[in-house]
Amino acid sequence: MSGLAAIVGAGCTKVGEHWELSVLELAVEASLKALDDAGSPPVSAIYVGNAASEVLNEQGNLAVLLADELGLRGIKAVEVRAGDASGALALHQAYLEMAAGAPGPVLAVGVEKLTDVMIQEVERVQMLFEDARATFHSGITIPGLCALLTRLYMQQYGASYEDLVLLAVNDHRNAANNKYAQYPFPITVETVLNSPLVADPVRLFDTAGVGDGAAAVLIVKAEEARRFSDAPVRLLASEAVAGEASFSSREDLLSMNSLRKAAARALKRAGMDIKDVDFFELHNTTSVVGILALEELGLAERGEGWRLVKEGQIAIGADWPVNTMGGLKGRGHPWGATGLYQAVEAVWQLRGEAGKNQVEGAEVGLTHNMCGLGSLSCVHILARWEVRA
Amino acid sequence: MSGLAAIVGAGCTKVGEHWELSVLELAVEASLKALDDAGSPPVSAIYVGNAASEVLNEQGNLAVLLADELGLRGIKAVEVRAGDASGALALHQAYLEMAAGAPGPVLAVGVEKLTDVMIQEVERVQMLFEDARATFHSGITIPGLCALLTRLYMQQYGASYEDLVLLAVNDHRNAANNKYAQYPFPITVETVLNSPLVADPVRLFDTAGVGDGAAAVLIVKAEEARRFSDAPVRLLASEAVAGEASFSSREDLLSMNSLRKAAARALKRAGMDIKDVDFFELHNTTSVVGILALEELGLAERGEGWRLVKEGQIAIGADWPVNTMGGLKGRGHPWGATGLYQAVEAVWQLRGEAGKNQVEGAEVGLTHNMCGLGSLSCVHILARWEVRA
Repeated sequence: MSGLAAIVGAGCTKVGEHWELSVLELAVEASLKALDDAGSPPVSAIYVGNAASEVLNEQGNLAVLLADELGLRGIKAVEVRAGDASGALALHQAYLEMAAGAPGPVLAVGVEKLTDVMIQEVERVQMLFEDARATFHSGITIPGLCALLTRLYMQQYGASYEDLVLLAVNDHRNAANNKYAQYPFPITVETVLNSPLVADPVRLFDTAGVGDGAAAVLIVKAEEARRFSDAPVRLLASEAVAGEASFSSREDLLSMNSLRKAAARALKRAGMDIKDVDFFELHNTTSVVGILALEELGLAERGEGWRLVKEGQIAIGADWPVNTMGGLKGRGHPWGATGLYQAVEAVWQLRGEAGKNQVEGAEVGLTHNMCGLGSLSCVHILARWEVRA
Repeated sequence: MSGLAAIVGAGCTKVGEHWELSVLELAVEASLKALDDAGSPPVSAIYVGNAASEVLNEQGNLAVLLADELGLRGIKAVEVRAGDASGALALHQAYLEMAAGAPGPVLAVGVEKLTDVMIQEVERVQMLFEDARATFHSGITIPGLCALLTRLYMQQYGASYEDLVLLAVNDHRNAANNKYAQYPFPITVETVLNSPLVADPVRLFDTAGVGDGAAAVLIVKAEEARRFSDAPVRLLASEAVAGEASFSSREDLLSMNSLRKAAARALKRAGMDIKDVDFFELHNTTSVVGILALEELGLAERGEGWRLVKEGQIAIGADWPVNTMGGLKGRGHPWGATGLYQAVEAVWQLRGEAGKNQVEGAEVGLTHNMCGLGSLSCVHILARWEVRA
């Protein structure tokens, strides 16, 4: 199925606190941008990724509501759920729809509105995507688990906290040039160290924030792509792999098996090696998680990911540019939307529309979106049209 | 894609008040039955349909948790959401997975646990699948909307309430022989008329109850089906169609456009006419909804569906057997599980395993599962193996 689909439209809202917009209105805004980008063709199906609108926004059935709002009654409308991997999973299902012979273009949308409730409720809901028997009733949170991971990583591999948070600094440097980012300004290591403790040793500026947003892409069959776009982007591979549902049941806490497997399958599908990838959009809930991802992708040996960051190798212009539009820390992390933001940002890079953050000569990008700390990983590989022309 | 997939395993829990089981344990029980039924082959993906576990059961991410619980780390795990159509939509996505070239068998599971919360909370959550702007804040409920529909139907078409509820009587007559049914006993029209009012004129025994349950089927490529089962069942068509997200925006309140379109597409895909179908599993939230379905399917003219019921034509042994294992009223309606219960029951009929409720010579069955009052309809057409041998 490699290369069967292409993205011909992409769009997103700014990530932020959108008090004035409903979860549905956010999805509509991103959808219309993606559709407009491709000349607004009729679509045969929409897939919506969202983590928890019933409990966060008192509204469910988002795919059907979005189809209706877009004037698309009579099409297929499917909502997909996997916590903060919901967006990439929706994109995966849209890709499957295309592989199964969709009669027309398919829209994939990710949306989340986290600011309708108190922050404590956001933390509570986030833990519903872990195995409640192992975590929820103990009171642990995702930042809490990240704190344990951070301490373990530092102890095991000799990195300092200052070393790790350079990943967050990288995010903010890139977010500064992204007008859709929630935090479009640079920070330093000192900014992190001077920010409040969230879960010792993890500090506020080492943690993905709470925000609202929506992002969308329009997919068509590769052979029809040029009818809709002068610069279609190839979707070379789309994989979704479940890992350990419970963090505590991992054999090695400092591993993410779901990512390793998903990336290996996606690269095989695309007929590529990781060295063929020109940039990476990673799921850095906190810095340590992004660093583990570098290791699972094979860009660094186990325990050496932090060195890659420290040596400047993940900056734009270096060997392995990471989170070129700001990542979870800089662009923001509206759960179910994040996977689609990654896809939209990869499209910008591959079209040469990434402005000051353009990775020169970018031909292939890889995105990783996961649920929680890796209970499900989705990996997509996107490429410039010419790569398989 | 007609005839590409076959069901080789099917299983379900009893529908009821399963105080002792969690939502995940229910899903595990049904999954193991479906897997055992096919010799427990390794699966490459699972799809889970569930309406609202985060808010009803304080647990999300069910597909990943189920995969882990079944010992299936490393496979694909996808959760699908569409209110009480979640089950059939999960089956549809599993079918798509097969159409897209799944490397192995795919498990489709529907599960819902409604008894962890108060009945008032169940009513509230149910309304989250309607357009909240039109319904939720007005305080209307699904039974309330059904009451309006019932009055309108009676007024417009000259049927009495006694005429309509014969559909519920049919359900219970069939449920009496289904050991998995929540209400396995016969009722009469008087039982309905003597039961408490839910929303005037709709009474308790005219309304789908509140219960827990899970159902699952295992799907493989048709050409491999005989390796897993002596009596595989063909999945000839699977369609999902969105209708009006808001009930109040329908041009004709007594219509269900999503069902009409989904059924037409499914029949076309299967290369069949509605008269070729030997039995029907319908989504009768209340009697009037089941009667409207008979009309939308073309089994009766508009306004004449109730006559079909009154004349005994939906009984087992008559022309158009409906809800042969009890339907939503008799078997029960655990939202996200219902679409899979329908599939499991169709498998029983097509294998000749329906016992006292066997439709003699049943070769083709049609199932209809919808969200709310038709904002999304899923239609499946299943057939005996020999139909396309």
